[in-house]
Amino acid sequence: MSSWDITMALATSLSLDDLPAQSDPPSGDPSEFDTPVLAAVAAARARTYDAVCLPLTNTTWRDRWTRMCILSGDRDGDTHAEAEARAEAWRANPVFELEELTMTRLDEAEGVIAMVSDWLELDASDDWVRHDSEIALQQELSYASYLDVQTAVLPPPRNRGQIASYGRAINTCLARTPYMQLSIRLPIYDPSIFQSDAAKPSASPPPLATPDSVASFDSRPSTPEIRTPDLRNAPSTKASEAELNATWEMWDIVRSICAYNPRLTLTLDLTPPLPSVPGVLNRWAAEPIRHVFLPASTFIANGKGYPVLPKGSQTFIRDIMKHRPVVILAGAARGRHARGGEAAYLQYVRHLEKTSAAVRQAATAGTVEHFARGYQDFLQAPLQPLMDNLQSVTYQTFEQDPVKYQKYEEAVFRALAEWPPAERIVIAVAGAGRGPLVARCLAAAERAQRSAFVYALEKNPSAYVTLQRRKAAEWGARVALVFGDMRGAALPEQADILVSELLGSFGDNELSPECLDGAQRLLKPDGISIPASYSAYMAPLSSSKLYNEVRAGKDQEKAAETPYVVMFQAVNLLSGHGGGTGGRCGPQVQECWYFEHPRRDGVLGADGVPPTNSHNTRSAQMTFHIPHAGVLHGLAGYFEATLYGDVGLSIHPQRKDLVSKDMLSWFPIFFPLKEPLYLPSNAELQVSIWRLTNARQVWYEWYAESFLPVLHPAPAQPPPGPAPRVDGRGSFVAAPATPFATPSPVVEAMDNPFLADRPPARLSPKRVEEDDARRDAGVVKIGQTTLHNPGGRSSWIGL
Amino acid sequence: MSSWDITMALATSLSLDDLPAQSDPPSGDPSEFDTPVLAAVAAARARTYDAVCLPLTNTTWRDRWTRMCILSGDRDGDTHAEAEARAEAWRANPVFELEELTMTRLDEAEGVIAMVSDWLELDASDDWVRHDSEIALQQELSYASYLDVQTAVLPPPRNRGQIASYGRAINTCLARTPYMQLSIRLPIYDPSIFQSDAAKPSASPPPLATPDSVASFDSRPSTPEIRTPDLRNAPSTKASEAELNATWEMWDIVRSICAYNPRLTLTLDLTPPLPSVPGVLNRWAAEPIRHVFLPASTFIANGKGYPVLPKGSQTFIRDIMKHRPVVILAGAARGRHARGGEAAYLQYVRHLEKTSAAVRQAATAGTVEHFARGYQDFLQAPLQPLMDNLQSVTYQTFEQDPVKYQKYEEAVFRALAEWPPAERIVIAVAGAGRGPLVARCLAAAERAQRSAFVYALEKNPSAYVTLQRRKAAEWGARVALVFGDMRGAALPEQADILVSELLGSFGDNELSPECLDGAQRLLKPDGISIPASYSAYMAPLSSSKLYNEVRAGKDQEKAAETPYVVMFQAVNLLSGHGGGTGGRCGPQVQECWYFEHPRRDGVLGADGVPPTNSHNTRSAQMTFHIPHAGVLHGLAGYFEATLYGDVGLSIHPQRKDLVSKDMLSWFPIFFPLKEPLYLPSNAELQVSIWRLTNARQVWYEWYAESFLPVLHPAPAQPPPGPAPRVDGRGSFVAAPATPFATPSPVVEAMDNPFLADRPPARLSPKRVEEDDARRDAGVVKIGQTTLHNPGGRSSWIGL
Repeated sequence: MSSWDITMALATSLSLDDLPAQSDPPSGDPSEFDTPVLAAVAAARARTYDAVCLPLTNTTWRDRWTRMCILSGDRDGDTHAEAEARAEAWRANPVFELEELTMTRLDEAEGVIAMVSDWLELDASDDWVRHDSEIALQQELSYASYLDVQTAVLPPPRNRGQIASYGRAINTCLARTPYMQLSIRLPIYDPSIFQSDAAKPSASPPPLATPDSVASFDSRPSTPEIRTPDLRNAPSTKASEAELNATWEMWDIVRSICAYNPRLTLTLDLTPPLPSVPGVLNRWAAEPIRHVFLPASTFIANGKGYPVLPKGSQTFIRDIMKHRPVVILAGAARGRHARGGEAAYLQYVRHLEKTSAAVRQAATAGTVEHFARGYQDFLQAPLQPLMDNLQSVTYQTFEQDPVKYQKYEEAVFRALAEWPPAERIVIAVAGAGRGPLVARCLAAAERAQRSAFVYALEKNPSAYVTLQRRKAAEWGARVALVFGDMRGAALPEQADILVSELLGSFGDNELSPECLDGAQRLLKPDGISIPASYSAYMAPLSSSKLYNEVRAGKDQEKAAETPYVVMFQAVNLLSGHGGGTGGRCGPQVQECWYFEHPRRDGVLGADGVPPTNSHNTRSAQMTFHIPHAGVLHGLAGYFEATLYGDVGLSIHPQRKDLVSKDMLSWFPIFFPLKEPLYLPSNAELQVSIWRLTNARQVWYEWYAESFLPVLHPAPAQPPPGPAPRVDGRGSFVAAPATPFATPSPVVEAMDNPFLADRPPARLSPKRVEEDDARRDAGVVKIGQTTLHNPGGRSSWIGL
Repeated sequence: MSSWDITMALATSLSLDDLPAQSDPPSGDPSEFDTPVLAAVAAARARTYDAVCLPLTNTTWRDRWTRMCILSGDRDGDTHAEAEARAEAWRANPVFELEELTMTRLDEAEGVIAMVSDWLELDASDDWVRHDSEIALQQELSYASYLDVQTAVLPPPRNRGQIASYGRAINTCLARTPYMQLSIRLPIYDPSIFQSDAAKPSASPPPLATPDSVASFDSRPSTPEIRTPDLRNAPSTKASEAELNATWEMWDIVRSICAYNPRLTLTLDLTPPLPSVPGVLNRWAAEPIRHVFLPASTFIANGKGYPVLPKGSQTFIRDIMKHRPVVILAGAARGRHARGGEAAYLQYVRHLEKTSAAVRQAATAGTVEHFARGYQDFLQAPLQPLMDNLQSVTYQTFEQDPVKYQKYEEAVFRALAEWPPAERIVIAVAGAGRGPLVARCLAAAERAQRSAFVYALEKNPSAYVTLQRRKAAEWGARVALVFGDMRGAALPEQADILVSELLGSFGDNELSPECLDGAQRLLKPDGISIPASYSAYMAPLSSSKLYNEVRAGKDQEKAAETPYVVMFQAVNLLSGHGGGTGGRCGPQVQECWYFEHPRRDGVLGADGVPPTNSHNTRSAQMTFHIPHAGVLHGLAGYFEATLYGDVGLSIHPQRKDLVSKDMLSWFPIFFPLKEPLYLPSNAELQVSIWRLTNARQVWYEWYAESFLPVLHPAPAQPPPGPAPRVDGRGSFVAAPATPFATPSPVVEAMDNPFLADRPPARLSPKRVEEDDARRDAGVVKIGQTTLHNPGGRSSWIGL
């Protein structure tokens, strides 16, 4: 299997029961299986697991740490002072005793995923428990590093009130343990929110988690909430948006405090049943999921008694397969399900992988996913064909697109077919490259049984050689070649149809408008352009991967000022389909601007070219509704073009399959942000983007502001009912959701530009943005980005 | 006058009426007063103005621009196409005609503040008006730059919906006009919010503003608002928090988009009457105010008919004097007030300057303000006396403090006076420096008529020479000198009283806790330490000046990881005195942590020193209420120490005058933020700060998160009443305030630590932070900072 292919690894999580303490001194002459750990690991591999997950320490360590660091009056006759003196001695020299560890030899730890003691409370409310947990964590990681462990799984954060301390401790560990991957075990939400309201104050420290349950979560008291009287009577099994946000919000704080360290990953714990709100799950797609923790208890029995997963979990795991996670099965050997034994769990998870859409698409020739293997989330500089002459291999790649040139042929065919009967129709291909459009024009003319003569203009001297060869070999007198830039070259006659393929991922970003302005001289006044028009689209995007990719560039300052072409994979569109509160917000993906060719009413100089490029400046302001809290890392850009009539090209995520399915030539564009922008649930994001120009350059600048809708004011008196319950341990869930209108799950009705007439008002350069005022009513500003690429200091393109 | 002194300059704003167009060619042999502009400028200087403010262009230019760029059907028989062709020709070559300008010679523009055409709409809703306004602005600034104009005043933003476009245009101008100061004229709020609800749609372009009014503001339609039915019946002269925020919010966006360019400043326009909400005015203190625009119309007549300012304006202008602004008087020559003529306005403003508290304090010897002249908002690295040996001149500076050593003497006096009668009391001065504390101890003993023997320990070999000189000359046998570090040196006997002066601006930041841990061996078990305890305090701070100062450092990455000692001036504390919604928030300035000496119950090694420094780690989480929207640029830090009994030292802003008035030795400390954090009105700011330690270093890390309180949910149906009115031009005011509880104007009751007993629970190292849970209930997270100084990569101090 090539490294392009999506491959999941399967691991088993062994429990302490399988691993007696290492009280025997290591043998002087180690051979295979001469320790219980080696035997257990070998047995797991024999059961076809790819990896093994082991706790690093055992209860002996936990007992010692607890006696030292947790004050309990008079345990074992110790005085406070004696315990404190032992703790100080340990803090000065944090050393394990042999019998406190599960692994003590290099061969035992080989390939093992180490579970750090999950009773450590890095976010305890007590200052000293937190302090001593951090020393213990560093001690464990330092020991794991000594054993050459590659990945350690850390205990989850449990206390929102001390999440910053948790994050700070992890960040210190990342700095002190240079090569190890640290993966935070985290449930998608706090399962206690579905429990009854009975508070269960947890002991300190919490009970030791067994490998197939998140005991530490189960023991959390349920969350204090402020609810309206009517909501308070609702069944408590319905979690609020904020409750479902809570673990993600903690993850976001931790990784932000750790400055998006690429060695910090997630072990998603699927112990609690998945919530049914899809947006809550989608956000994890944009996060670095390294492991999925899947206990046998999450499986249900199918009709025949074999273990299977509930529908929602199936879907989620199939989707997450594109992250190539390690799936850690726990407790599969304990006979929890009647049929199939341990093998049935493995078989089932491998079945989910095979039936994952991401895996299947990548394996199917002709799909974009197959074409793009190895390019997912890889930043590419957009082509600048105006400035750079392309290589033959680049032309060849794009000529392989099975859809794009077929659409062009169809567009030319329709134009020819509808053309008033004429002896001879003149077609000019502006930017002929190696000739694919020339060939398609000729094919279209044959199909339409029209007499067409084609001028092929090309500025790339190398490609012009290929054109000469093809004219000699294929086209003959039906084609005339003209060397030169379409903005300056002359043709013997004006064309009826001007065909070009100058579009970039964002439509105009390869300077199609400027080039076609210069080529319009070559077209008869009533001639037509193919493409006839194109629009740029945008949506707000979250992706910790892409944020890190941009930062990994050499010149960080410049790297975040440049748009990139990217095949998105580990990303999440943050915008909702609905219109948000009060209808201020547009759809999930919004139109920025529109270009049309030929320009009918523009001012032209004596040379037939516009005196300035002012008419090709654009600016757009879009307001997006953000139904679920997320972090904005950049803006996804798309285009959609009308070639002729209802023949088009589109990479708009909701319309591409409708307009030009399986087209390969364009990945989306990505406008990065220098700093992530946090967006709470129900936020509104106002994105500004400008297309700017001077005599020599064209560039984009972009900027965003975030808002929260304002509610109708509350009554002066608080509503009747019991006061919100507050417990002493800190809340797991941050807060109830801002109780605004719930986002509509209904997908926006499809707005197909090929069926509806586009209102001409959109084209008016002087149109007034009437809805500015509406947009700003009833929201309070909460944040903003910097202005990106001011003055076009990068990503400019020479005209 | 030295450059330290606060000096205001007075300018007059001349109107176009005083300045005929420059249609005459400039004379070949220029002499003084040979143009009307030179005559007008000379006349202004004769009337004792320091500077003159002139419009750059006149109505001829405005008329041409309007004919080209504003479509009006058939003005002067022009067709649309002809106007467009002329506009394109202008866009390609933006050139003034001679008669369109007020100034055309270098000598005319000398020292002049140029007013850019204030009818330019950089934030018009119409794309083309915006586009052509930007070209015109660049044309004007380029011309002003040619004339060597140092400062240009720009037209105010008027349209919240296009504020990002306004900011982007200004940012482009800053890049293209390298040396010029650009100052945005801005009223403190939009005066139209106090007008009646009758909408007055403004013409496009708005009427030309005369120099003594902000016509462009007066003509704005009033703001659409969403109000509750009851609020809707309230008198419309009461502006909401958000309405009063609106111009500041626009300023914040513009300067953020311009990346806090230090050449971008404010011309505060005091045309509209000042609001009575002090918090709304305080925020301007943290902004770069270069000019204050003060029209004669803002003045009222006093009993004798002389022009004076209303009380609120007086206070505000006196306060703003510390910014050393240029006050631009407009229309003072028009005889608006019965008595005094133009001179009366100048005299009155100069009177305000002289009676400004900031100016008076700076002129009064013995005040901190006088002592700190030249150091305001200047970043100083905190002293590290443990690592570096101080210079004699540094000791001398601090020995000049009239208050600090008097307090020390008083503390020693009280301790001696209360001491049980004894033959001989042993005092150890740990860190004697050049001997000021030794002398004070001897003086105290004389006053108390006790027999005291003083050991003077010092590790600085140079200062030790001074000590020897003083012993020989002054102290004799009453003092014994011991050379060495207090953490290792030995004394012949243990002391009864250990006196030290190791405190930094943040209390423990010069490692007083660590040093006194090491010196505690020298103290008898029942001995006392002076100081007995100290606390660190914090408050959130806004200051564009300090943000820029930090960024101006060489190593920007490191510069924002280091705390600085700063005498604050152009700053604003963002926190309110009240407790915020639901009492989650503490007072304006909050305690971080507390140290006490000597440690009574700590674990000690055989050498009498603690085995680890764990007990000196600290962490604090504070929640602040932010009543008015602002930008967080950093955290202000303070300390307060108890020397003995009720004798203390304090730089706590609300208690310093109570505890140790006129003490000079400590400026506050400033913990900067790498990126500003926007905080909306009524936000809650949770600040985390840690004092961390390892075997060799001590450092701070800091981090903040912002929240907005959540309201009780609204009724499902919108309240009855007319729908919010929306007009077509975009709203000046962003949005009505989040209608949460109004912040209380009542200052928190003074909590004097010297009157009340400090509860011993505070000292317990294992105390549980019980209020974490309460803090997190009922708020939604909206933003965060990065973690600053992770791992102590800077600002550490060698132990």
